[in-house]
Amino acid sequence: MGKVLTGRKENYSQWYNDLVVKADMADNSAVRGCMVIKPYGYAIWEKMQATLDKMFKDTGHVNAYFPLFIPKSFFSKEASHVEGFAKECAVVTHYRLKNDPNGKGIIVDPEAKLEEELIVRPTSETIIWNTYKSWIQSYRDLPLLVNQWANVVRWEMRTRLFLRTTEFLWQEGHTAHATKEEAIEETEKMVNVYTDFAENWLAIPVLKGIKSPNERFAGALETYCIEALMQDGKALQCGTSHFLGQNFAKAFDVKFASREGNLDYVWATSWGVSTRLMGALIMAHSDDDGLILPPKLAPIQVVLVPIYKGTDQMQELLAAGNKIKDMLTAQGISVKFDDRDNCSPGFKFAEHELKGVPVRLALGPRDMQNNTIEVVRRDTREKQTISQDVLVDHVKNLMTEIQANIYQKALKFREDNTIETDNYEEFKKLLDEKPGFIKAHWDGTQETEEKIKEETKATIRCIPIDGKQEEGKCMVTGKPSKQRVVFARAY
Amino acid sequence: MGKVLTGRKENYSQWYNDLVVKADMADNSAVRGCMVIKPYGYAIWEKMQATLDKMFKDTGHVNAYFPLFIPKSFFSKEASHVEGFAKECAVVTHYRLKNDPNGKGIIVDPEAKLEEELIVRPTSETIIWNTYKSWIQSYRDLPLLVNQWANVVRWEMRTRLFLRTTEFLWQEGHTAHATKEEAIEETEKMVNVYTDFAENWLAIPVLKGIKSPNERFAGALETYCIEALMQDGKALQCGTSHFLGQNFAKAFDVKFASREGNLDYVWATSWGVSTRLMGALIMAHSDDDGLILPPKLAPIQVVLVPIYKGTDQMQELLAAGNKIKDMLTAQGISVKFDDRDNCSPGFKFAEHELKGVPVRLALGPRDMQNNTIEVVRRDTREKQTISQDVLVDHVKNLMTEIQANIYQKALKFREDNTIETDNYEEFKKLLDEKPGFIKAHWDGTQETEEKIKEETKATIRCIPIDGKQEEGKCMVTGKPSKQRVVFARAY
Repeated sequence: MGKVLTGRKENYSQWYNDLVVKADMADNSAVRGCMVIKPYGYAIWEKMQATLDKMFKDTGHVNAYFPLFIPKSFFSKEASHVEGFAKECAVVTHYRLKNDPNGKGIIVDPEAKLEEELIVRPTSETIIWNTYKSWIQSYRDLPLLVNQWANVVRWEMRTRLFLRTTEFLWQEGHTAHATKEEAIEETEKMVNVYTDFAENWLAIPVLKGIKSPNERFAGALETYCIEALMQDGKALQCGTSHFLGQNFAKAFDVKFASREGNLDYVWATSWGVSTRLMGALIMAHSDDDGLILPPKLAPIQVVLVPIYKGTDQMQELLAAGNKIKDMLTAQGISVKFDDRDNCSPGFKFAEHELKGVPVRLALGPRDMQNNTIEVVRRDTREKQTISQDVLVDHVKNLMTEIQANIYQKALKFREDNTIETDNYEEFKKLLDEKPGFIKAHWDGTQETEEKIKEETKATIRCIPIDGKQEEGKCMVTGKPSKQRVVFARAY
Repeated sequence: MGKVLTGRKENYSQWYNDLVVKADMADNSAVRGCMVIKPYGYAIWEKMQATLDKMFKDTGHVNAYFPLFIPKSFFSKEASHVEGFAKECAVVTHYRLKNDPNGKGIIVDPEAKLEEELIVRPTSETIIWNTYKSWIQSYRDLPLLVNQWANVVRWEMRTRLFLRTTEFLWQEGHTAHATKEEAIEETEKMVNVYTDFAENWLAIPVLKGIKSPNERFAGALETYCIEALMQDGKALQCGTSHFLGQNFAKAFDVKFASREGNLDYVWATSWGVSTRLMGALIMAHSDDDGLILPPKLAPIQVVLVPIYKGTDQMQELLAAGNKIKDMLTAQGISVKFDDRDNCSPGFKFAEHELKGVPVRLALGPRDMQNNTIEVVRRDTREKQTISQDVLVDHVKNLMTEIQANIYQKALKFREDNTIETDNYEEFKKLLDEKPGFIKAHWDGTQETEEKIKEETKATIRCIPIDGKQEEGKCMVTGKPSKQRVVFARAY
């Protein structure tokens, strides 16, 4: 089918957009900034959902569902939250349309104006804490460990499929605790769950850390995050977990009777990941020929292509192919037998490469004679011809090997593109010439952070949790610093 | 804990509302008409979703996701669709809030008015068929069998938890076919899937039929439905499947090159069920003491309550109880060991009755001596003391028995409350005095149907698909009719 993607070196951004659309992940819709997630892309999101949902349940959480709409006044209740979230959002002002009396189609009925406007949720802390008020009376009602799978809307001016869309899908956990310590423990537990998921399922190594005050979630006392490095040297935030202190409990007056009989405000956390992870998955591993998917999340793990001439060969190969498909399927491997008769094997190979199918099998007449089969890995393109007798074990091993190899490759890339510097001029040069994670000393002030952001477009991605303690001097002001922080330009 | 519900006979409607709230299914939210689905209720919805999703996939469908917002103009493209759906809906007119210059909190920024208003989807035919235009070129792209799990909004004036809410959760299937016959076959296949789900999972017998033209989905040529009878003799529509003909393909110009090389319009279906099924499940089976849940959908299938005095007994019973829990869990049964130490066994019994747990086990000191255990069914309240040695098999059998019994009970109720009449006066009397399904002859005209609706508030619920063909006369006009249709007052 020929080259269908712009090369990464040529135009990384165009490569990504081409890939998302042509590999049937998602597409732009008729609504500005809103995407359509296509079946092949959605199948990956479903696998992500199922995996994360199990992880949340294994850590004691339950799911619930809260309203899509939030009364405008709710956003004013938590002072810093309103600044962060109530600005660029979709506002529902009316509840009825009517036929234009002048016959020009349908118009908004001016008589159906809402008394108070409703905001389409950009995040649900306010409506959820307003609900928790009636759910929490005593320490026996705590901890309350609730998650929600939902769509949210943030009115973005510049959008990109999966990475920044006006509407996106996500999960948001909202937990309530009796003590500060327990809430912090929960915040850390969930960033660890996200780390586990990113590394062992997405096959993306991540830096775990806390955000600088500037980059914190609006309303949080501390924001934990995981940060990944994409192939163009830009960082992508993959998940956040917030310790909210008693801010929302105070804003919505949620108190509980403690074991000792006191009336205290409840402690809160919230944490979320979104369809942005689809963008991370696509960008972290793929190449100029298409997606490279980790086997654990690939909707199709193995594709089998028959190669034949004439009807006799076809019949024989279809029978043999179906047998192989059944054998692999019985082992829990997701197999597609591509027996289409209207395109060539070469066309099929290119299409499955584009779609990132981890393993491709090809079965031809000579294989039938020799009891062999051709096996090609998508990640390394390594080609082998093996005996059909060992196929099942071979493919099972490949699933593990490819998963590990993709991770190792991404890890090596990150290591090769993480650099320490103590010099601000070098820092600027690196950002342009060898972008990646840059570890540098920072004096801990908002002023310096903003100066750096303004001058270089780089932000502090995180202050690593287990970062080495070392004395140093801020690369900008020369003031003392006890630990390097991680800078990068980011998505 | 004493009686917590209003009795059904006293006030059926209040009983339902009490039950939904007190059994932790759902609650009203701060947003008019929008509900919060609480964790216990959401766990049932998750089981429904998982079951239906598997049924859809087993019949060849895939999931995708389309935008929450639909441009206003899209609704005008299909003439009858706009009448049905574009009226009572949430309209997004602005995309930004700002601080009130007079310091009175936040206000809608008048400068951030959308050029074209966006409607929060009440159903997605228009945005999906607008997308299908770019997905479908040739007969090789067909059939396209797509489902979406989503939230939708219809601005309802009178709302009731689960039964009629402004926002609700649902699935909507939208399929595209090369021929009329294939689309009709799909429409019928999906109403059969819904029937299977209602009867074998919800344990609710349903009538399967087609809607009269008056009650059809806006934009459909034929609407298939399943109708259930609630305990107050009112009908509840539980699912619909629509044959849309070429209406949406024509409205959005979706054509395909046929095998013969012609350019034809595509044939369409859509089908959906919603969180309304939660209302059906609750209303169909429950009693004055609480929910009665079919085991296949119960989040907790078995509750085990230890009965003890003093710490020594407690220790012994906790150990034995955990062992029993593990034995049952190992058999795939969902068990809750209610070892709370702050409430009495009687309190626990009442609470689990309220929540509809199918089987309750109680374990006391005498049971420990005798190797016995007390087993109580929620549906019949039958109490037995059995040997612990046969407990696992006994409980497994009970799961099947209770599921079947609940269905049979609902079926008998429906049979007892389905009556034929040929007399319009008797028809009116029945509606008031013995409400239920009424089978009567109708002349097939819209005028008669509307007259009956106006005079009695009863509607034609469906024209049964496999209904007996019999000559008769319309009970209102005396005109000839070939088949009885099913009337009822409905939710």
